[in-house]
Amino acid sequence: MPQSASAAAPSSRARIRRLPERAHYDASTVAAIVDAAMICTVAFQIDGVVHAIPTIHWREGDHLYIHGAKASRMLKALTAGEACVTIALADGLVLARSAMHHSMNYRSVVIYGRFELVTDPAHKLGSLRAFIEGFYPGRWDTLRPISDKELNATGLLRIALAEASAKVRDWGVKDDAEDLDWPVWAGVIPLRTATGEPLTEADSVGERVPATRFG
Amino acid sequence: MPQSASAAAPSSRARIRRLPERAHYDASTVAAIVDAAMICTVAFQIDGVVHAIPTIHWREGDHLYIHGAKASRMLKALTAGEACVTIALADGLVLARSAMHHSMNYRSVVIYGRFELVTDPAHKLGSLRAFIEGFYPGRWDTLRPISDKELNATGLLRIALAEASAKVRDWGVKDDAEDLDWPVWAGVIPLRTATGEPLTEADSVGERVPATRFG
Repeated sequence: MPQSASAAAPSSRARIRRLPERAHYDASTVAAIVDAAMICTVAFQIDGVVHAIPTIHWREGDHLYIHGAKASRMLKALTAGEACVTIALADGLVLARSAMHHSMNYRSVVIYGRFELVTDPAHKLGSLRAFIEGFYPGRWDTLRPISDKELNATGLLRIALAEASAKVRDWGVKDDAEDLDWPVWAGVIPLRTATGEPLTEADSVGERVPATRFG
Repeated sequence: MPQSASAAAPSSRARIRRLPERAHYDASTVAAIVDAAMICTVAFQIDGVVHAIPTIHWREGDHLYIHGAKASRMLKALTAGEACVTIALADGLVLARSAMHHSMNYRSVVIYGRFELVTDPAHKLGSLRAFIEGFYPGRWDTLRPISDKELNATGLLRIALAEASAKVRDWGVKDDAEDLDWPVWAGVIPLRTATGEPLTEADSVGERVPATRFG
């Protein structure tokens, strides 16, 4: 868990206005939250209309990567203008003695900038491998190898994590002092993503369920 | 789970372009996904810059509600222009025999429109009650009652679910026919949000942990 908010905001638009005591601008806090999440929301404009679309992401070094069909409207718009990428993880329900102080523990990241298209085939191949390996360590080499046609049809985009902010709440209940003896339970109920029983395809030849990042 | 995509897109900007076989525009599918999620991302512009901010939401009837400090930049911007609200729930990891056909099962919603400020105190009170009760059935009446000052300081906004689309993937692996005998496990690993052991505040007088919508 981040302990300090010592790094400064990288830009005016990335500076957190509300509850700045929850703000973090250091690269390691941002990277850890990006890695902990699977889905981000990518916001952008087309002809003045704001769109925000959820998509799977992964991280390599100082960049967040997304992929999609090359012909998609989103991928075209993202190389033509600025974007804002949002990640939010719900970590706990915070139950106070007053409605006002109910809250959530969470980790979130907001990234501003412009996506760049990755076109080099070796870079694309390496990134898609990192994507699969990040979800399922050791799986890439067990798969039917990717074809040049598939690689070519995949649009790959990345955005620098340079202009990013993180916001973290990871503490207990903050009630008003005069409410502390109110006779209702106060505390935090943790939340996490859990995996269920794997559903093997009827025609699956492989029998060993792979490990995932969720254990 | 939704069985048909019979309803038409409510507008051009809300029409799903990619993978339209996953699109649903009926109100009941949209409402069910809004209800199943806790956090949405609200995207909007300020002076041409797109921002996207995660926040807690709840639903009442045909509207999605959010709240925040009255003075917040977001709440001001949202009553001045159009917004796009996004919800995404990760339901499963889809593991195919080829990298290309790996996917996720998910439910997502995208809502376009303009938020309206709710100012009537009785409406605000009723909505905040519905918010708390939606998370923790029966809790509102056990809390220290909300004060007029707290109610007044809370900004409440709602957006109609009229111009919304849902996108759902809830099926198994779709590999290429020639890959079906590739010797690697293929199937779906379900994902869900789970609660952990409640962490009671040291000074909590109440002892009974409340029920949550997560059971």
